[in-house]
Amino acid sequence: MNSLKDLFHPRGIAVVGASKDPTKIGHIILKNIVEYGYKGGIYPVNPTVSEVMGLKSYPAVSTISDKVDVVVVSVPNVKVLDVIDDAGKAGVKHAVVIASGFKEVGNIELENELVRRARRYGMRVLGPNIFGYVYTPERLNATFGPRDVIPGNVAFITQSGALGIALMGSTILEGIGISAIVSVGNKSDIDDADLLEFFDEDPNTSVVLIYMEGVSDGKRFVNVASKISMRKPVVVIKSGRTEAGARAAASHTGSLAGNVLLYETAFKQGGVLSAKSVEEAFDFVKTLSWNPLPHGERVVVITNGGGAGVQASDTLADDGIHLEKPPQDFVEEVKKIVPPFASLANPVDLTGMAPEDWYYRSVKLAVQNPEIDAVLILYCHTALTSPVGVAKAVSKAIEEAGVSKPVSVAIIGGMEAYEAIRYLTSIRIPAYPTPERAAHALAAQLKYRRYREYLMKKEHLINKSS
Amino acid sequence: MNSLKDLFHPRGIAVVGASKDPTKIGHIILKNIVEYGYKGGIYPVNPTVSEVMGLKSYPAVSTISDKVDVVVVSVPNVKVLDVIDDAGKAGVKHAVVIASGFKEVGNIELENELVRRARRYGMRVLGPNIFGYVYTPERLNATFGPRDVIPGNVAFITQSGALGIALMGSTILEGIGISAIVSVGNKSDIDDADLLEFFDEDPNTSVVLIYMEGVSDGKRFVNVASKISMRKPVVVIKSGRTEAGARAAASHTGSLAGNVLLYETAFKQGGVLSAKSVEEAFDFVKTLSWNPLPHGERVVVITNGGGAGVQASDTLADDGIHLEKPPQDFVEEVKKIVPPFASLANPVDLTGMAPEDWYYRSVKLAVQNPEIDAVLILYCHTALTSPVGVAKAVSKAIEEAGVSKPVSVAIIGGMEAYEAIRYLTSIRIPAYPTPERAAHALAAQLKYRRYREYLMKKEHLINKSS
Repeated sequence: MNSLKDLFHPRGIAVVGASKDPTKIGHIILKNIVEYGYKGGIYPVNPTVSEVMGLKSYPAVSTISDKVDVVVVSVPNVKVLDVIDDAGKAGVKHAVVIASGFKEVGNIELENELVRRARRYGMRVLGPNIFGYVYTPERLNATFGPRDVIPGNVAFITQSGALGIALMGSTILEGIGISAIVSVGNKSDIDDADLLEFFDEDPNTSVVLIYMEGVSDGKRFVNVASKISMRKPVVVIKSGRTEAGARAAASHTGSLAGNVLLYETAFKQGGVLSAKSVEEAFDFVKTLSWNPLPHGERVVVITNGGGAGVQASDTLADDGIHLEKPPQDFVEEVKKIVPPFASLANPVDLTGMAPEDWYYRSVKLAVQNPEIDAVLILYCHTALTSPVGVAKAVSKAIEEAGVSKPVSVAIIGGMEAYEAIRYLTSIRIPAYPTPERAAHALAAQLKYRRYREYLMKKEHLINKSS
Repeated sequence: MNSLKDLFHPRGIAVVGASKDPTKIGHIILKNIVEYGYKGGIYPVNPTVSEVMGLKSYPAVSTISDKVDVVVVSVPNVKVLDVIDDAGKAGVKHAVVIASGFKEVGNIELENELVRRARRYGMRVLGPNIFGYVYTPERLNATFGPRDVIPGNVAFITQSGALGIALMGSTILEGIGISAIVSVGNKSDIDDADLLEFFDEDPNTSVVLIYMEGVSDGKRFVNVASKISMRKPVVVIKSGRTEAGARAAASHTGSLAGNVLLYETAFKQGGVLSAKSVEEAFDFVKTLSWNPLPHGERVVVITNGGGAGVQASDTLADDGIHLEKPPQDFVEEVKKIVPPFASLANPVDLTGMAPEDWYYRSVKLAVQNPEIDAVLILYCHTALTSPVGVAKAVSKAIEEAGVSKPVSVAIIGGMEAYEAIRYLTSIRIPAYPTPERAAHALAAQLKYRRYREYLMKKEHLINKSS
């Protein structure tokens, strides 16, 4: 079977079912491909019209004389096999089958035939029952989801359609930069493991997020996951974690979500970070994709509110991260900044009177100190300072420190706090509205570091013994 | 000791330390009292000026001839006792001591003397080391926090200052309506139990939210909490849940956060809902304050995305809520709306093609069905519908159903989803950005219902046996 290289770097894409009707999925996909700026050949295929969106329309894929590597199939299920035959004969390498009405509604035979037919031509199938895929390095958005995906280094694989499209929108709102979004739907051929192998090699991807209801080949998934996890973190939202959830998943995709414990074990073996909720997963992705890898687990918490510091300490403790006394030279320097009654254990409490400058100086000292591995910054909006002002002081400190170190910021308050968070995330500093979320997201990075070290040690032992 | 009635319904308030300098806390508090619209007497006390903000300034509380029930004390700690003597002699009933520099910095003797001195005059003390208090039914905002608190039915008690002020701002951003906000600081005299007794009787309060690092009299807290919990839910964020958090709390307030397990047990006995994070607590408060009490635990989930339904099922299962098959008459009616392949087990999947009208009709049917106790509505923003359109369809269905029933809504997507959430919360329909948060917040209501029934049964048994 061919690799997925041509799926993500196609020389040309045909859209079968491209339509002039703006409510049709075939129209929306073509429009997204054109408007998002894909530079390869774009070929609408629709025998009933001569052009769509100013592009020449072809009666069949086989009538296109240029090189087509991908065919997007947006026609009713009963017509899909004919398209596969036509495209297969034309030498197309990947079929992206949008159409639904296959295994998810009990049409197992049609789905099996789809794969058999594609294999005959050496063609790989993405889908069916999907909303398409995105690869931002090629400015390729072949979905009927939102158009203006933010380019970045996160690859997102989703088994869910409606939720997946909605989360595409969430990445834009949350400022999360995307390398790829892949709707895998029924996973008749291309599955999570295939995609992980591609993203492992992909220089444009540094974090992978998966929404998964189940995998058919658990062993292969663990093998591939443990390989990529030595280089890039993988976050999985495993839907159907509970018996009730698994039942709901079964009625929805027809796929058995499988034994809960089995997945938990598999994820641990694969070095995969498990997220219970969509919010948690997105929170993790921000620290994982914007921060460098931490060298150790020595976290220092800087706050202007004792309460926020306590909440963060609780969350870190839940996550197995223990706060130790900050390095003495750091404490001595901070003492020169804050009033004498400030508590300089960890959390370091700048006190409620802390102006922007105290944040600037203490954050810079913490980022520069070689005995500190990661910095958690908490700010409660009081009457004395402006959240955006503090956010700018923090970003200036991080920039001027001249050292790249994991950080996570909580800005707690009203509308101005919300704006400060948006400012920080726009410059790729992970920022959250509560101390617990900021702490938990930073802890995910430390957890990934542990997983990674374990996997590398294991591989080293295997290599030595072989 | 006098009750807290006069603290919340004062005939007049004096602000000692009222200042013309807009950076001074005494200035900000006076400004908030004036501008938020308090209708009782407002008396700046400052011997060095003749007026502040156009109000006559008095040299001492005792020189005010009108009735003053509350004195807000915003002077340095060393001057506080003199103010207490002066106000006590003048017959003031409550001292709200903003000043810090007491027990929290080791100044235990000064704090004890403050309480002794106040008791001599029958005066109660709120604080010291606080940011003030709010009571919206009297349009009273005597804090140096944000001014435009939204009137509503939630009372918020906070032991933390900076975090408390920041969360005041969050209530405005999140659209949470407030009856009272009380900063309790060092709790030298007035504590959580005193306030719970007041809010139990207060017709303007229907939910109480407490941020607590510790209580000194656990037994009394449990007694009072179990009494109010039969009528009104109490949500507690117990900071310092872990050993590490408790240590952080101790270094911050000087109060021992105490044994983690003890608190957990106490909360259960008191029928208190425990929230691990600020976000969770706010999420709970929305369903608890905007929804009626559920009659039972029969939840129906309505969704347009299978994945969102699975995530919600998982969360509900974690919370001990088991989804049963929806009532047959409801299923028969929904069948007439949706395509034949839609799964109508619970979750009820309207499918990704569901337009606004399907939401309108199915939500109305669910709210009207007497065999359904609560409705969880999930919407993934796809290309086909507008989030605000769906939000309006949902609110219309709820309004027209003619039955008041607990609901919770998730709108998942980008900026438009965010706007739809803001629309729903503005009309007091609990709405969240993820399926898990919407499900968990609804589950909190069902949990409260269980606690309440248990407490009532217990009381009934005690009454019978006595």
